[in-house]
Amino acid sequence: MSRIKTQSSCPISNTLSHLGDKWSLLIIRDMMFLGKQNYTAFMESPEGISTKILAQRLKALEDEGIVSKHRDPDNQSKNIYQLTEKGIDLMPIVVEMSIWSTTHVDGVDVNAGHMNAIREDKAAFLKTAMKRLKNQLKAF
Amino acid sequence: MSRIKTQSSCPISNTLSHLGDKWSLLIIRDMMFLGKQNYTAFMESPEGISTKILAQRLKALEDEGIVSKHRDPDNQSKNIYQLTEKGIDLMPIVVEMSIWSTTHVDGVDVNAGHMNAIREDKAAFLKTAMKRLKNQLKAF
Repeated sequence: MSRIKTQSSCPISNTLSHLGDKWSLLIIRDMMFLGKQNYTAFMESPEGISTKILAQRLKALEDEGIVSKHRDPDNQSKNIYQLTEKGIDLMPIVVEMSIWSTTHVDGVDVNAGHMNAIREDKAAFLKTAMKRLKNQLKAF
Repeated sequence: MSRIKTQSSCPISNTLSHLGDKWSLLIIRDMMFLGKQNYTAFMESPEGISTKILAQRLKALEDEGIVSKHRDPDNQSKNIYQLTEKGIDLMPIVVEMSIWSTTHVDGVDVNAGHMNAIREDKAAFLKTAMKRLKNQLKAF
């Protein structure tokens, strides 16, 4: 499990520094719930991330040990990205964010993605989804 | 319950836009777990927030309906701030951030604040702590 150095000892004050901003979270969402693995797929997301921001955020997430970068075995000229165990462990935070925004923010699709399964049994959803991602971790 | 307009329908892509950055989260932490209510108290936090950033972030959190501002009944020249119900409902996100960073980030105090109670029974901790804050909500 990769661990990184930090300057503050407060568990809360550290997390956003390591997680990054909205764009980082969107990349994590796309890997976590949509199975996206490469630049082309990330660029297709409706939020319209730019190539420059995508490259910066992927590098930062890689430096944090949240994603890992590998040569695509099917196309050696391309990279593919996957969440590490540390990245997969962000899922409870992301799920709680989804619950909060569907409760408190107008215009959010309350049935988007896995929201119904999350509302029905959050613990079961997390257990199954995190286990599936960890089982898919490939050693490149 | 206050609700705000947003441009994207994805529950995940919205949350960080509304929650803000690291400084906003630190203010929320101080209100949520340390009972801080005013400028003087917020300024004493070890992360060293500046007066300018504090004022900007409190205003943004107020605009988002996450905190509410009131005249201090004991000192009419001062304001006090409290989390709204929408703000209190951020607690599960903040708690999951704490769990993640104590697991994955070096140098974080794994026994800080309420971490032992959270590890022992997260659901019970959240239920008690959120209920206490909601019961304390004052109508000014």
